[in-house]
This record gives sequence, structure tokens and C-alpha cells, in this order.
Amino acid sequence: MKPPNRRQFLALAAGMVLETKRQAPEPPEVHGPRLVSQLEELSRIGRTPEGGSVRVAFSEADRSARQYVQDLMLQARLEVEVDAAANLIGRRPGRRDLPPLMFGSHIDSVPNGGHYDGPVGSIGAIEAARALAEAGIRTRHPLEVVVFANEEGGKTGSRALSGEVEPRELDLPTASGKTIGEGLTFAGGDPARLEQVKRSPGEIAAYLELHIEQGAVLESRGIDIGVVEGIVGIRRWNVTVSGSANHAGTTPMDQRRDALVAAAEFVARVHRTARDTPGRQVATVGRIEAEPGAPNVIPGRVTLSLEIRDLEMAGIDALFERLREESRGIGAQTGTSFDFDPFYLSRAAPTDPRLRDLVEQSANNLDFSSLRLPSGAGHDAQSIALLAPVGMIFVPSAGGISHSPREFTEPGLIVQGVKVLLQTLLAADERDW
Amino acid sequence: MKPPNRRQFLALAAGMVLETKRQAPEPPEVHGPRLVSQLEELSRIGRTPEGGSVRVAFSEADRSARQYVQDLMLQARLEVEVDAAANLIGRRPGRRDLPPLMFGSHIDSVPNGGHYDGPVGSIGAIEAARALAEAGIRTRHPLEVVVFANEEGGKTGSRALSGEVEPRELDLPTASGKTIGEGLTFAGGDPARLEQVKRSPGEIAAYLELHIEQGAVLESRGIDIGVVEGIVGIRRWNVTVSGSANHAGTTPMDQRRDALVAAAEFVARVHRTARDTPGRQVATVGRIEAEPGAPNVIPGRVTLSLEIRDLEMAGIDALFERLREESRGIGAQTGTSFDFDPFYLSRAAPTDPRLRDLVEQSANNLDFSSLRLPSGAGHDAQSIALLAPVGMIFVPSAGGISHSPREFTEPGLIVQGVKVLLQTLLAADERDW
Repeated sequence: MKPPNRRQFLALAAGMVLETKRQAPEPPEVHGPRLVSQLEELSRIGRTPEGGSVRVAFSEADRSARQYVQDLMLQARLEVEVDAAANLIGRRPGRRDLPPLMFGSHIDSVPNGGHYDGPVGSIGAIEAARALAEAGIRTRHPLEVVVFANEEGGKTGSRALSGEVEPRELDLPTASGKTIGEGLTFAGGDPARLEQVKRSPGEIAAYLELHIEQGAVLESRGIDIGVVEGIVGIRRWNVTVSGSANHAGTTPMDQRRDALVAAAEFVARVHRTARDTPGRQVATVGRIEAEPGAPNVIPGRVTLSLEIRDLEMAGIDALFERLREESRGIGAQTGTSFDFDPFYLSRAAPTDPRLRDLVEQSANNLDFSSLRLPSGAGHDAQSIALLAPVGMIFVPSAGGISHSPREFTEPGLIVQGVKVLLQTLLAADERDW
Repeated sequence: MKPPNRRQFLALAAGMVLETKRQAPEPPEVHGPRLVSQLEELSRIGRTPEGGSVRVAFSEADRSARQYVQDLMLQARLEVEVDAAANLIGRRPGRRDLPPLMFGSHIDSVPNGGHYDGPVGSIGAIEAARALAEAGIRTRHPLEVVVFANEEGGKTGSRALSGEVEPRELDLPTASGKTIGEGLTFAGGDPARLEQVKRSPGEIAAYLELHIEQGAVLESRGIDIGVVEGIVGIRRWNVTVSGSANHAGTTPMDQRRDALVAAAEFVARVHRTARDTPGRQVATVGRIEAEPGAPNVIPGRVTLSLEIRDLEMAGIDALFERLREESRGIGAQTGTSFDFDPFYLSRAAPTDPRLRDLVEQSANNLDFSSLRLPSGAGHDAQSIALLAPVGMIFVPSAGGISHSPREFTEPGLIVQGVKVLLQTLLAADERDW
């Protein structure tokens, strides 16, 4: 909670040209109470009687919230554009002819979600830009504060920048009731011009995103700042276990080929193997069904989902091979067979090692404790990583809860995160990318 | 397959009075080809194009089959009655004023069932009675060959004899589309007079039932005859495992309270504990559901069914207590809790030890191999056990398959079973019950 060290800041800001007044630079000051009250204001838009958020992308509440955020951008002396992918972009010119430093997040929520996943990084980015403007600091790089469209419903805004949005996606329904295409138009974008928002590698100097952790690692260890090592890759399989359905009363225990007993051994092994393998991979079985599904019939077939996440795709593949090997042993023991059908892939997006160092140094300079950790959840940074170095800063989530009305982060921890964002931004501005 | 030993038979039949001719008694002869062709004839009534049986109780097919069986009873020189519970009873007087020896089974099937579960014991009982009639043998006890109504849909016929049918049951729907009450009337019974068919303890000397095993124990060991130790009791529970739903990407393996991991450990333990505990109890988890049930969410709640069967209710209770104890350990290890809600109970019905011995001796005398084993499935004998000593004879089921069009027992094995039924009947007739 200690304010930035004045000497350190002055050293950083030494090379900067003052925007309006030719005098010794003032350190840019993150205005905590203002930030907190803006978050509070934003949370009222689309709030449920129970305190959650139904601000799904392209809803009326989303549009109202976008208007509110646009006003905040103007107050931060940013020049606002809504691009064809309905991204809100607040620009501030730089001193040099360099590609922009981009930073931001999103403000849409999942249905009955919370008020921190997205808003913390969006309002935080605007506050960082405003602090720079108020301190009269002009950076070397142009700045782009971005609030991406439809993060929760498919990262449409950020994936439009990386050119990943496929035409047929525009017809997909969203939680707002509109298709993605209709939603883009509703929010001021233009699905017909989506190609125009695409950026090429090199056109963004670097991207920074502040976000809540959505996990309990930082809170449980009492750490202030998470230095994100990357967004984990995800693979999912439909697993089918085949045994032999039979009468539960007349088939002795040693003559059974019980698909659920085999599946149960597998679920237990998935947990144990993922837990006991060095690394921070996670593996989850979230869905299971036994057929025929009657209390008096030995299940002949079980279908279940297997999901593995890791920062390295190679780690996912190695764990999967171990689990497949273990399934063979279980199959041999239980007279069953396992079949794995892959159905989902999301590639890992490591953060840039230089930006990790800058985030870590900034936290350190501000006397905040920090920890390197992967992001188990997906973020807009993942799309931008395809064309620019990205860095991410996490602040703790109370109880690790997210996508829930019970999502919460202490205001003090949020302000710390915004301070780290600002310092990292200034440090990143010092170098060419 | 060896025919009954002539000397042994003559000894048994020594005290019998010949019915028509005053000459040395002929051993009663089970007519194998006739029995097999009658089973074949019966299987054509309600046969599906795929070869299964849709002869559900109270259907048109059931009524036609009952008519066919009634004709067979008449050919066996039995006096036929349809009682108020729509049971077909074929009577033959005895030499003494004793309660009757009853033997039989049922002819209704489950939807898309097979042709052996029920018919083997019904046609077999009629054949045994016919063999006696043809050999001119009159037994000490009166005989009652019975084909019980609606076994598969709730053992209505046999439970009417034990007085277990409750008035509200009559309104329950059956697979035929009729209620049980309507079905009884349709089949020639009278639901209003159901009380009149009730028998008191002592009114039946003993009951014998021949049936297919519906399991694979006899076949897998190459045994001819199963000496049934009793019909197992059944208890079922709905088990709820409560943990904590969480993000599958952001929750490290060691911070999870995964209800499915706990449930999987439990399912594996249920199997192992039931298998490794001495005895022939069986325990099955046939149904499982994880909530919320998404591949990317750690399950917070799992519901599953637990069923335990054993010949002794005390064995069921002891195994359940062990499993509940193990669930506490799993709960403590995984941060979850287990709740057990009993929802079904069927009391065990042991067979009479004297009848077990007679069945075993009969098989032995006929040079058939035999094995004592419990019946994991329910049977009409279970109802009659409440008021009389019961005995059951099993013949092997190919592959242990039952309640399926693939149900099958070799004709030769069926004939052996009927021979054992007949010999047991004669031995049982020798004594007072």
C-alpha cells in the first residue's frame, strides 16, 4: 500500500517532455477514491436485485456502460473511437513516431456475473491514462486505452484485431439475444468492415492488461500482485468408457465389466496425476454420465469430459499421454476400454518475458509483494499475443470466486494494481519494442 | 443329461397309489421335445420382428399366452381356475387331506424382454404335472401349478396370495397401458375380491419355482443346476456428495474441493469393498450426475445411486456402515461431505434349508452338477416365502443375459431343470410340512 517511491519515479520520468508546462515533472498520481467510485458507478449499470451483473455484451446495459466509459475516456483527455469491432479505443498521441502501447480490458459480464472481471482493468487503464494527463506527461509511444467488445461471449473485439473472427461467427447467438453481427452494429461497430480493424505484427508496441486473478492463489498466499506468466492452453476430450451393462443383482462382483468403476478409477487418477506431476497444470473432469443410468443396472458405458490446461502445450500433451497410458492399465484391470475424442483446443499464450520483468520490477519498486503465476482463465491479451508482446497484472480475488455475484477484490488491492499498471507502462515506454 | 436312476425313483414312488391302473408304477417321464416345442410355441405370442418379447402383463399378447397355457394345463389333466388376482391355477387332488404343494412361475415379460425368464418355470411346472398324470401317479399332497399374474410389473399375483397388494397399487399404470386394477379384470380376475385369494401360513405346504439364473455364475463354472439359497434383500440410497464448484482453469489442484473426485473415490471403494468382503453381497453405483456439469467447471455437487444386495439384511447393513465410514475418510481428505438418503428396500427371502437339501439331492441323484447360490433378482417365490417354505431351482443363462431378446438357455439344460423340479416335488411330497 506504500505510495511509489518519489526518487524512482523521477528517474523514470526524467526523459519525458511535459505536455503543457515547462517545469519539473510531477509524479503521475493514481487517484484511488476516484477509481473506486467509478467502479461503483459502473457496477450500477445492469446490476441485479441480488447484487450480480447481467451486463452481457450487446445488451442495453452493456450499451449504457459503454457510454459511461466513453465519457470517462474523454475526461482522461483521450480521443475516443469506436472501431468496426465495437472496441472503444481512447487515444493519446506520443512524442515519437512509434507504434502505440495498448492497455485495457473489457466491461461486459457473464450472465449473473460480478463487477470486477473486466471493469478493474478497463477503469484502471483509463485512470492510468488520466493520471498521466493530469501530471502533464506525454509518453514516447502513443497510447491506446482499449475496452474490448464481447470478451465473455467469444473475445470478439480482441480477436478482430488479430484477424481471428470468422465470418460465420457473426451469426452466432449471444446472451443478449442478438447475434454477434447484430450486436456489433448495435454497439456502434460495423461487421462488414471487420477486416479493417485487423492489426499486423509490429503495429502494436506492447499490450498490458490488469485483471482480477479469478483464482485463490494470490489471496491464499497473501500476495499483492500476480505477474502473469501467460494464459494457459486448453485441450478438452470426450472420453468414452465401454464395459458391459448387466443385472446389478445377479452379476457377482468379480464377473463385472463395470464402466463406471473404470471411469471412477480414471477420474481419481486424473486428479492425482495432475496434482502430483511437477508444474502448475490442472486437469478436470466436469461432466459424467453413466448408461443406462438405472440404480439396478451395472453401467455398460460412461461418457465424461477431460480438460487439461497448462502454460505449455507440450505439458498438456505429456500429461494427456500419461493419463491415456493409465487408462490402458485401468481398462486391462476392469475389462473395459477407453476412447478419447478431442473436441476443443485453445493455444497457450505466454506473456513476454521482458514485460514480466517490468511488471515484477514495478511491483517491487512500489514495495508490493508479487508472485509469478499462470492465468488459468482466458483473456483478451491472448488474442493480442498473436501480434504483439503482452503483459498481464493480476490482483487477488476474494475466495478465488469469479463469474459470480460474489466476485470481490478489496479497493486497496485494485488501486495497487493500477499503480503497477502505470509504472509498468512508463517503464515499457522507455524502450523500443 | 443322465436319466433318473430307476432304482432311486422306484424307491421314491413306492408308497404311491396308482391313479388308474393297479400295476407297478412307471417312473414319471419328462418329455423333453414336447417341453421345448411348447416353449417355442409360447415364444411366438408377442414376439417382436427382432426376436424379443413384448408380452407385458395385461397386454393382448399376455392374454393369448394365458389362454395357451390354460390349454396346456388341461392337457396335463389339471383343473384350472383363474383366481381374483388373475393367477392361473391348475389343481390336481392328493391322496391325503394336506395343504397343497405349489409350483410354477410367470409368463409375462418386460418390454422387449426374452423368452426364458418365467416361461421356463411355468411350462416346466405344467410338464412336471403332466409327467405325473401320464405315469398315473397321485401324490400325497394336492398339487397346484401356478402361473402368477404380472410378475414383471410388481409381482401382483403372488403378492395377492401373501396379502401384500395395497388398494392404491390398483391405480398404478402398467406397461400394457392399463392400470393394475384394469389389467386384473382384463385377464379374468376381480380386483374387488382380491382379499379372497390371500393365503395364511400353513395353507401352502411348500412352494417350488424353476427359473433361469439371470446371471452368469452357473454358465461360467459349467454347473447344471443352481440350488437357490434365497432371494437377496435390496437397499438403495441416493448419495449426495457436496464440495465446491469452481473455475477449472484458475483453481490449483491442491485447492480444490472437487465433488466428482470424491465421488469417484467412493465408487471405486464401493466396488473394492463389496468385492473384497467375504460373502456374495453385491454393491452397484448405476447412476451418477455431476453439477453444474460443464467441462470447465469443477463439480460442486454429485448425486449418485448406491444399491447393496445380500441374502442377509444384516450383511447389507454391515457393508453400508463400512462404506459410510469410508465416505467419511474420503470427505475428510477431499474437503467434501457425503449424505445418504435411503429410498428403496426389498427384504431378503431365504429359501427353506430342507428344500435346498432336497433340490441338491435331486440334482445329485440325477447326476447333474449343482451349486448353492443366491438369487440376485426378485421372484414370485419371494412373496410366497412370507407364508410357506420355498425352494428355487436355477438353470444357467447364456452369457448371464436376461431381460433382453438375447436371453437364452440350452433346451437340454431346461429339460434337466424340469427333471430336478419333478424329483424335488416327489421328495417334498414324502414329508409333512
